[in-house]
Amino acid sequence: MNAAAAREAEGASVMHLEVGQPGTPAPRLAREALKQALDTPLGYTLAVGLPALRARIAQLYADWYGVSLDPDRVIVTAGSSAAFQLAFLTAFDVGDRVALGDPGYPSYRNILQAYGLEPVRLQTTLETRYQPTAAQLAEIGTVQGLLAASPANPTGTILDLPAMQALVEAIEAQDGIFISDEIYHGLHFGERAVCALEVTDRAIVINSFSKYFSMTGWRIGWMVVPPELVRTVERLAQNLFICAPHASQIAALAALDATEELEENRQVYARNREVLLEAVRAAGFRDIAPCDGAFYVYASLPEGAPDSAAFCQALLAQAGVAATPGLDFDPERGAGTVRFSFARGADEISEAAARLVAWSAKQAADQ
Amino acid sequence: MNAAAAREAEGASVMHLEVGQPGTPAPRLAREALKQALDTPLGYTLAVGLPALRARIAQLYADWYGVSLDPDRVIVTAGSSAAFQLAFLTAFDVGDRVALGDPGYPSYRNILQAYGLEPVRLQTTLETRYQPTAAQLAEIGTVQGLLAASPANPTGTILDLPAMQALVEAIEAQDGIFISDEIYHGLHFGERAVCALEVTDRAIVINSFSKYFSMTGWRIGWMVVPPELVRTVERLAQNLFICAPHASQIAALAALDATEELEENRQVYARNREVLLEAVRAAGFRDIAPCDGAFYVYASLPEGAPDSAAFCQALLAQAGVAATPGLDFDPERGAGTVRFSFARGADEISEAAARLVAWSAKQAADQ
Repeated sequence: MNAAAAREAEGASVMHLEVGQPGTPAPRLAREALKQALDTPLGYTLAVGLPALRARIAQLYADWYGVSLDPDRVIVTAGSSAAFQLAFLTAFDVGDRVALGDPGYPSYRNILQAYGLEPVRLQTTLETRYQPTAAQLAEIGTVQGLLAASPANPTGTILDLPAMQALVEAIEAQDGIFISDEIYHGLHFGERAVCALEVTDRAIVINSFSKYFSMTGWRIGWMVVPPELVRTVERLAQNLFICAPHASQIAALAALDATEELEENRQVYARNREVLLEAVRAAGFRDIAPCDGAFYVYASLPEGAPDSAAFCQALLAQAGVAATPGLDFDPERGAGTVRFSFARGADEISEAAARLVAWSAKQAADQ
Repeated sequence: MNAAAAREAEGASVMHLEVGQPGTPAPRLAREALKQALDTPLGYTLAVGLPALRARIAQLYADWYGVSLDPDRVIVTAGSSAAFQLAFLTAFDVGDRVALGDPGYPSYRNILQAYGLEPVRLQTTLETRYQPTAAQLAEIGTVQGLLAASPANPTGTILDLPAMQALVEAIEAQDGIFISDEIYHGLHFGERAVCALEVTDRAIVINSFSKYFSMTGWRIGWMVVPPELVRTVERLAQNLFICAPHASQIAALAALDATEELEENRQVYARNREVLLEAVRAAGFRDIAPCDGAFYVYASLPEGAPDSAAFCQALLAQAGVAATPGLDFDPERGAGTVRFSFARGADEISEAAARLVAWSAKQAADQ
């Protein structure tokens, strides 16, 4: 991101396929709701969030998954970042081991380590859609938790119902807790992603208004916790955060009704995805992860390419396309992979795709 | 707070002297700035905050204290809550001991304990304005940090320059770090409170837009850290929070120029303080802390009163005045003390004062 910003500062044209966030603003309904509320005092809310927002989020589980959910189990948080902190502090003690798949979002392991917990990284493969498996869990000894993301970052892959069930059974059989990162839910290009609550009531489910609801900078998300953990999470939230931002809670409540605008955004992503996938294939990338959701394409570099850091530098410098080296997500194998985001507008993704294909053809011709 | 809400739900009139936040909205300039920005995408900011906001906060240190501050040392945070988390994780390792005074804000010790740190509580007394002293620090063995708040919650007392210097020297002499909670700065009724940066560059200073700037629910604050800790704090902030709420950062930047409105608020607090102090004296409270700042009066209960929980229940039920039992702030001695807030409007504080005096007179007559 810094290199891309530096190129732009030099006057270069850069297509931003490195970004992990929508280019769209918060939904119109969300902005209007906040404008209406702005002149009233927006003081602290309850630590667990505005009651109307908790109830409306519970309704989402009925609408999306057919799951009936008690709003008391919903905790509104300052983004999924706060939810992960609360989940880890609630579920684990210093020294506990938590399994999670590589490639993955790097902050998971960094937060775990900051809290004195041990991330146990599972090397996932394309054969299992870059998702961890029960068989891998069986090989690492007892862990106190398993964290999985579906749709995942950086791969966009989804756990189907049997895969989710197998993971949940495996971790719960050893009295561990399943932590389900569902922050890309809503952004699917085939079947809707499975929610862990369709499988178990003992998981901690984490979600966010950042991605589908297009509200990254608002720092607003939520978690659903088992009934017996609600009071612990509430006390931790009160002490660590006091509450999620009040203005963001008001905007988020209205965003939940902005289906029309959000589905239009999703259609843009769906078209971007087709355009980018075609370009990535044409440019010789291999092992392309099946991007069932989110807004990422993750793939191995073309034959003969240098490591991903050098590759991304060259792509940026010579083609004006910014992408993220896989090393950010997979310290072991990421030198051979790259993540492209298709979260930006259609024109930008089309231009980036054309540049990528042309640049790759020139690279091949030069070899 | 729950009891006060329940009384109101029954139709009773309740004066809210239990609240720890202004009743005023964010400054008009802040709300207008946000309205202007609302229709643009408010994505993630840099983990350390918007550059313009960091620069403007640095300017505040020149304006308020005559301290020249490099903006690179300013980290914008999701309220002081996030700043305390970052400070503790940056400065300490599991098992470290951190000294802090009783009475104090209960979340300090709760966050420390959640992180596996040991809060070492110092029993402060009225003789030292309920502030910890270097002599107390000398009695508890080596600690890795000392946390002090000035103006303090629940007492409103301020550390003067010699007192601050003595504390800083004592903790730095044992290679510990001074963490200065300055979230009530701007709210003083005599001399402006001393900033730790007037004494040392090695302290971590934590401040907030919640109190003087009247933006509690916006969850926006900041910290100033020694140059050598900036990168550590930045990395932790990136992983734990990504960034502070973007909308709140925009509002906060404008709030820094809302001096006229904020000084009007402060004049209301100053009048409220006089009214409440007179009532508290008339009602027989003792050991009244010198409330140099913030918006609290902390005092020992009148002769013959029951414990503070029972006292506050009776005061609420019989006089319709909500206050906070001292036990929340001082587990050892708080059964004998109470905190009254004068953060609400002038009419409410005047009515509360009248009720308190009348109720106390009746109590005395009934005895």
